[in-house]
Amino acid sequence: MGKLYIVGAGPGDPKLITLRAYEVLREADVVLYDRLVNPEILSYTKPSATALYVGKKAGEQHRKQKLIYRLTERYLAAGLKVVRLKGGDPFIFGRGAEELIYFVERGVEVEVVPGISSCTGVPELVGIPLTLRGCSSSFTVVAGNDENADWSVYRKVGTLVILMGVRNRRRIATELIKAGRASEEPVAFVEKGTWKEEKVIFSTLAEVAEGAVEVSPPALFVVGRVVEFAKTFRTLKEVVGC
Amino acid sequence: MGKLYIVGAGPGDPKLITLRAYEVLREADVVLYDRLVNPEILSYTKPSATALYVGKKAGEQHRKQKLIYRLTERYLAAGLKVVRLKGGDPFIFGRGAEELIYFVERGVEVEVVPGISSCTGVPELVGIPLTLRGCSSSFTVVAGNDENADWSVYRKVGTLVILMGVRNRRRIATELIKAGRASEEPVAFVEKGTWKEEKVIFSTLAEVAEGAVEVSPPALFVVGRVVEFAKTFRTLKEVVGC
Repeated sequence: MGKLYIVGAGPGDPKLITLRAYEVLREADVVLYDRLVNPEILSYTKPSATALYVGKKAGEQHRKQKLIYRLTERYLAAGLKVVRLKGGDPFIFGRGAEELIYFVERGVEVEVVPGISSCTGVPELVGIPLTLRGCSSSFTVVAGNDENADWSVYRKVGTLVILMGVRNRRRIATELIKAGRASEEPVAFVEKGTWKEEKVIFSTLAEVAEGAVEVSPPALFVVGRVVEFAKTFRTLKEVVGC
Repeated sequence: MGKLYIVGAGPGDPKLITLRAYEVLREADVVLYDRLVNPEILSYTKPSATALYVGKKAGEQHRKQKLIYRLTERYLAAGLKVVRLKGGDPFIFGRGAEELIYFVERGVEVEVVPGISSCTGVPELVGIPLTLRGCSSSFTVVAGNDENADWSVYRKVGTLVILMGVRNRRRIATELIKAGRASEEPVAFVEKGTWKEEKVIFSTLAEVAEGAVEVSPPALFVVGRVVEFAKTFRTLKEVVGC
């Protein structure tokens, strides 16, 4: 029986995987990788390794997951080292835990290798600290794709990081204002964070609620006073020129 | 003028730093490292590099921070590559952003290298997924050392990860129950996560509120139904024996 590694690929930049992930990729016989993984990371594998794209589109989640399980089981039965490579961190909106249990239940040896989650790494690399003394002493990470989510829950928490929230951004901003967050609260969208195509858009909850902000997914949606820090930092960088 | 790198050292395991952090450490002339950094990570530096411990104890934060700035400025003036190595991720309760602005304001070239934050990596490695379909679609990370914090804010959010909350654990648990979280809600404490001395304690909010749980800092305090996952996972591992 082979061994399974559930590995985080980080936000995109191939230098942002861990040393353990690098080791595991170099020794892998097979890599099954998801939609948000930067394919450049596959260059760390040995020439004989097989890399298979198993990313899911809307509507084919269930079928594809069954296929992933079947493929993985076949490779493991052949005694191979199989890497399940997931964007960001496998245990944050990545179904890594579900795959872990599935295989542990079947007696497979599994190692989990954490990754830099986009929700922390991407804001950081554009100059947004999720926590900041005197400004925010907590942050909340939430999925924005649930049409029926109750946004009033996040009325008083600190920095908000919303994943998969681009499509619902008007409703989310409207609900957050209705729940009591300030309409002038700063917002940043980071499209394709750490990738070559990265783009940062600064705005406010009010502007997002009015539908005035154009964004393309995948993008991280950050709400909070800490967003001001990135603006100061960027202005300073322009002034100082570093 | 030298260059400054503000680098995340991850939760402790030396294999959990990024490839970029490894590169930067290998080229560093000076490394100024904090209290929660595993000293084994310093072995990645070249033999001629200087490693200085600049961890802070309670009561000396301000004085030490000034010393760190002065030392860093002196090394930068000498044209050296200086690494500020911080436990976890530098932008999550790490003052990385404050140091970034301080040096950018003074015209220093600064690169930030994210790290695996303990708040995500440590639960993951003991089998606790911060999000899980049908169980938790958000997580909140909060500092537990503020005596005056209003815990009712976190009444309805998903998984709670509390850092620096060991000393205040009774009060935190009591306030969370009073605010409406279930007293039987599962809790895990992870002492020294990913270090050789790692220890996991499973409990409930009620038991913590009653003062029945012994924990030694530094420990991560996790509250949420997702903690059950780790218990199932651990039992399965015992049964399956992998």
